[in-house]
Amino acid sequence: MTSDPRRTSIGAQRNPESRDAILKAATDIITESGLAGFSIEAVARRARAGKPTIYRWWPSRGALLLAIYELQKPDLKMPDTGALEEDIFLFLKGLIGHWRDTPAGAIYRSILAEAQSNDASARVVGDYTAGRYHWIGEILTRNKARGTLADDVDANMAGEQIASFAIARLVMHRLAISDSELRLAARQFAQGLRKR
Amino acid sequence: MTSDPRRTSIGAQRNPESRDAILKAATDIITESGLAGFSIEAVARRARAGKPTIYRWWPSRGALLLAIYELQKPDLKMPDTGALEEDIFLFLKGLIGHWRDTPAGAIYRSILAEAQSNDASARVVGDYTAGRYHWIGEILTRNKARGTLADDVDANMAGEQIASFAIARLVMHRLAISDSELRLAARQFAQGLRKR
Repeated sequence: MTSDPRRTSIGAQRNPESRDAILKAATDIITESGLAGFSIEAVARRARAGKPTIYRWWPSRGALLLAIYELQKPDLKMPDTGALEEDIFLFLKGLIGHWRDTPAGAIYRSILAEAQSNDASARVVGDYTAGRYHWIGEILTRNKARGTLADDVDANMAGEQIASFAIARLVMHRLAISDSELRLAARQFAQGLRKR
Repeated sequence: MTSDPRRTSIGAQRNPESRDAILKAATDIITESGLAGFSIEAVARRARAGKPTIYRWWPSRGALLLAIYELQKPDLKMPDTGALEEDIFLFLKGLIGHWRDTPAGAIYRSILAEAQSNDASARVVGDYTAGRYHWIGEILTRNKARGTLADDVDANMAGEQIASFAIARLVMHRLAISDSELRLAARQFAQGLRKR
């Protein structure tokens, strides 16, 4: 960065419309053409913005893709039914349905594809996803407070295990999963595999 | 397919050297240049083979990538220690180490990246990976025979849950995982999350 950080910051505050225009252009391009048609140049052209303006807010393609992914987020509430297995089932059903039925799945897939050949994008999406594991772990934390959770459960790790199931389904293009399969997964996460 | 299937099959049997040359060229290109430099044209040039010869054996980029991934496979034995949790731990450690310490991880990542924008490749890798889930499920089947597994465990689903953890780590470039983290994951898979 050679520019004066104060100017960058003031510039960002001054032009919320150009920020919105960039996000809209980026969303349109990725949903119309996929990752193959997605470049900072193409977004700049469509948004009638300069490339430096884009890079000021989003330092990599991965960061910009993640910003438009975040815009797709529904008002997802963390399930809190009082039953651990049901909470896990509802969480997986909500996340997989969101990826399957909205542009969010294709956008997140594009980010993951990008991350396979771009280390900066991989770090951005890895850090973001680790934050999501922590957020998912709240299902566990709540159930722990309720006394239904084993004392030695690590909530972050459980969040990662549950989310990884959905991520692998997304990556393999296998989001057409029945409720009974999801219930089976939720039961095995909650109850474990060993003899009880 | 317009060609006579018998001729195709005889041709394939007649030229094992060209098959090996194609696999070697494809492996060299993907390890040297990654997915960006990988095309059927580039493989054909390097192997001094015709593109139709390549397509005769591998109908898509994804199928060819999967063939070279398979060649990287170590003589992985399924762990069989007599303890479910230890079997899961050793399996995850072996798979993640294989991806981290050999070209296999980068190759499988390339296949997954390819699958995000190519439906034929997505089907190939999805079917392949579902087969691997089934194979991993043998850990469970053996433990079931030994009487250490809950009666209602679905071995395929358990294989998917365990493998998905490793796949998400691969995709997020987070294969640097400690034994203690892996033991925690294995314990939570085996024992489950709910109060015992």
